[in-house]
Amino acid sequence: MDVHGLCVGLDPDLKRMPKEFASVSSIVEYMRLVVDVTQHVAKAYKINTAFFEQYGLDGYRALFETREIVGNRFCVIDAKRADIGNTSAAYARCLFDELRADAVTVAPYMGSDSVSPFLDRGLTYLLALTSNPGSADFQRQHIGGGNHTLYETVIETAMGWKGASPIGFVVGATHPGELAHVRTLVPNAPLLIPGIGAQGADARTTAEANGDGPALFNVGRAILYANTKADSGESIRDAAEQFARDLSR
Amino acid sequence: MDVHGLCVGLDPDLKRMPKEFASVSSIVEYMRLVVDVTQHVAKAYKINTAFFEQYGLDGYRALFETREIVGNRFCVIDAKRADIGNTSAAYARCLFDELRADAVTVAPYMGSDSVSPFLDRGLTYLLALTSNPGSADFQRQHIGGGNHTLYETVIETAMGWKGASPIGFVVGATHPGELAHVRTLVPNAPLLIPGIGAQGADARTTAEANGDGPALFNVGRAILYANTKADSGESIRDAAEQFARDLSR
Repeated sequence: MDVHGLCVGLDPDLKRMPKEFASVSSIVEYMRLVVDVTQHVAKAYKINTAFFEQYGLDGYRALFETREIVGNRFCVIDAKRADIGNTSAAYARCLFDELRADAVTVAPYMGSDSVSPFLDRGLTYLLALTSNPGSADFQRQHIGGGNHTLYETVIETAMGWKGASPIGFVVGATHPGELAHVRTLVPNAPLLIPGIGAQGADARTTAEANGDGPALFNVGRAILYANTKADSGESIRDAAEQFARDLSR
Repeated sequence: MDVHGLCVGLDPDLKRMPKEFASVSSIVEYMRLVVDVTQHVAKAYKINTAFFEQYGLDGYRALFETREIVGNRFCVIDAKRADIGNTSAAYARCLFDELRADAVTVAPYMGSDSVSPFLDRGLTYLLALTSNPGSADFQRQHIGGGNHTLYETVIETAMGWKGASPIGFVVGATHPGELAHVRTLVPNAPLLIPGIGAQGADARTTAEANGDGPALFNVGRAILYANTKADSGESIRDAAEQFARDLSR
């Protein structure tokens, strides 16, 4: 029973929010509107901590309040943390206990003992091939003297790590060829697939490349800021419904 | 005029703090004591966000208050963030604007555009060879078909990235041989060197391996929890003075 389908990113940006909502104190109200008009098609919500932390202590308070709005719907906390073991354990407490994440994102660079405190707690999407241009700098480099790239090595190595929960991976929708290739490596692993919409990837192409494996397809700005002015959420609802249709193969 | 010498890690852990201080509401008071009795030998303080975030919203408030206590002393915010470009820019706003970091730590896995928003803002220590056992999983693997490891490739690649500030690197004191090797690659780059004390590395050995380059040698638990009970900070002062002596070659 893996969660699968459209994931809506809740990433507040006062510069993009309709003028009526463009203050830190209105973030939660805006996120409530977005959840209200997308919940009939969204299988999950993804909260990226950066967009709240940028507004300091008030932003961090809005992070917790936004988490309450997501409620019992599946909630990914996208924080891309990782540190030495005892420090990762502290991050895991924040994400799984304080923020009640159903799943988290974790960076692989520091290796096994930096990831296992998250694996012990819940579904962990490890960064593999990210959606940004910088993914070429290290992730696509060949490693270990063979013909495997770093992102392939991360996936293969991490599949051997033991944890209480299954491990998943982040694979950017901006690389449909590699996404299809990842599915040959891990047909059944949960994937978190960002990059659809504002980052340029197409929903249908992405769903085709993923095939039948369980995946959350995240759409952030293209849904969240579908409205240029406050319109009671109609544009947001329309955008979410269109993405959900395009993702259902 | 690079900052160089002992860096004291301010990482609250209620399980290790003296009983008299073992509550979230006492974190700031304890950190004030630690700063008071170490400031004559500490060249910098390092605040790791994980240890505050683990206590939720109250912990996050204590993070900002602890930052105030560090005041105008050199302050590293150790958060190991990185994400796609616009998201890293949000993290950079949090760390450099809201938390007024003098320097930050950043994870390299996502490449150039995930790091440059930090480089544009201030001194950035990029993770190279970390102090934990998991550093062997990917950082020590050979990459690109040659005989360079991933951590060497990260250093060499990142030295070519342009930013408003110089780039520095995190190299664990638990690898003195590699630390000396890094100094042959980047003799003048600012290094942040964790791993001394509780993680097992020796201060003198580490200072020798670093040689003459600018470095902050971080000591966390071995100073912060030198006292097993409240003793007005004498044991903390003694530990800090001993580490400062051992680090001065």
